[in-house]
Amino acid sequence: MKDKLFVVKIGGHVIDDREKLDNFLAMFASLDRPRILVHGGGKLATALGEKMGIPAEMVGGRRITSDETLDLVTMVYAGLVNKKICARLQKFNCNAIGLSGCDADTIRAVKRPAGTIDYGWAGDIQKVDPEPIGKLIGMGFVPVFSPITHNGSGQLLNTNADTIAAEIAIAMSRIYAPELIYCFEKRGVLKDIRDEGSVIEFMDPKTYRALKEQYLIHTGMLPKLDNSFHALKNGVSKVRIGHFNLLGNFAKTHTTITN
Amino acid sequence: MKDKLFVVKIGGHVIDDREKLDNFLAMFASLDRPRILVHGGGKLATALGEKMGIPAEMVGGRRITSDETLDLVTMVYAGLVNKKICARLQKFNCNAIGLSGCDADTIRAVKRPAGTIDYGWAGDIQKVDPEPIGKLIGMGFVPVFSPITHNGSGQLLNTNADTIAAEIAIAMSRIYAPELIYCFEKRGVLKDIRDEGSVIEFMDPKTYRALKEQYLIHTGMLPKLDNSFHALKNGVSKVRIGHFNLLGNFAKTHTTITN
Repeated sequence: MKDKLFVVKIGGHVIDDREKLDNFLAMFASLDRPRILVHGGGKLATALGEKMGIPAEMVGGRRITSDETLDLVTMVYAGLVNKKICARLQKFNCNAIGLSGCDADTIRAVKRPAGTIDYGWAGDIQKVDPEPIGKLIGMGFVPVFSPITHNGSGQLLNTNADTIAAEIAIAMSRIYAPELIYCFEKRGVLKDIRDEGSVIEFMDPKTYRALKEQYLIHTGMLPKLDNSFHALKNGVSKVRIGHFNLLGNFAKTHTTITN
Repeated sequence: MKDKLFVVKIGGHVIDDREKLDNFLAMFASLDRPRILVHGGGKLATALGEKMGIPAEMVGGRRITSDETLDLVTMVYAGLVNKKICARLQKFNCNAIGLSGCDADTIRAVKRPAGTIDYGWAGDIQKVDPEPIGKLIGMGFVPVFSPITHNGSGQLLNTNADTIAAEIAIAMSRIYAPELIYCFEKRGVLKDIRDEGSVIEFMDPKTYRALKEQYLIHTGMLPKLDNSFHALKNGVSKVRIGHFNLLGNFAKTHTTITN
């Protein structure tokens, strides 16, 4: 039987709040299992972009990645956020090693072809290589991924962090039995976004379709849920979505995604 | 006998010139030896800082690292420059893994105590751990270090890249026979900074003292030379200073530092 592996994605406002981020990282550090962290960028890239005169162009929740924006997100995600997280994890005795897709050739992506919308330097994942990631875990390191990937020809690309987490979990299922955990500010997938008590505890494809048809799922949740079902269909044993305090007390309310 | 290891520092304007950097990285990638690259930040941090309203305060060639400047250099050095270099090296089939001191706890530093000058978040190296670096090299990865370190308590620090290269070479001498190579725009240490032909081919401590007393060495070279002699005294077998094309043709003129 394969060993368990946690693939944890942390995103949302937590990244920008030092105290909350520290609480989360302390919990992550204390997990007694092989584990991988994937982080987003928070609102810092947008705020810094404004300072530097680089406007944030978003279409359907996705950033249009111009030359300047690619430099900006590489600086913020792969540099500032990734290294701050790794330094904090080291404080909590978690031997973090910060990675972007170019590092150890872990994640290759291709530039999304320009269709109706030209997303610029947005990268769709082509391959996550489980071998170097497995080697690093085997040596006792805890990989911490930023959402920056590369195309193998020297070009960096900006890739959605939720998708990276799902694809890493899928790739690692060749070596481990991965559990994918999406952590954010909400207690799970909510029936009513204004009511924190309305957590849907179990979500299967049928429920998902029905809720989607009734427009009862917040559009921001759709990519996370699509990634979750995609992961479950491709070797990931379990997917959960919940509050970033979830890691500290798994008994608390959250959404478990089932096939 | 220990295996040879190249510890190469690349700095200066090369970092900011894509074509020159690519030429250098292609040469570095083709070296048929275990190797480590250490890079500086070039002028990008200063240019970006100006855009963001963060002035560069320099004293004796060293940057004063305020809170904002630390964020800036972490973004530029550990993010943009490090990831661009790693993506380019992957293109040249060199399995680069970008690291800052917090990654795998490789380099710990302490905040420089404020004396006459308060350097802010400048970090003086306390310990380079050869073990994780050796493990990564043993697995076939090529470590690429940015000049960002950490203090073990969650704080990132800004450390001189020349010093990092020397201290890495010294630490790695427990496992390998390291050769330290400083690459920059000049063909070596020059007797006359305006004359590229005036390369001093061999420099021993006696020559160094004599030239220093006559003020014949450019102040910008002093830290590099001090680091070189320090490395030679502490287990590093060879130190060379020369043009970034040096790696491609070791027969060309350069300065060899001797004890």
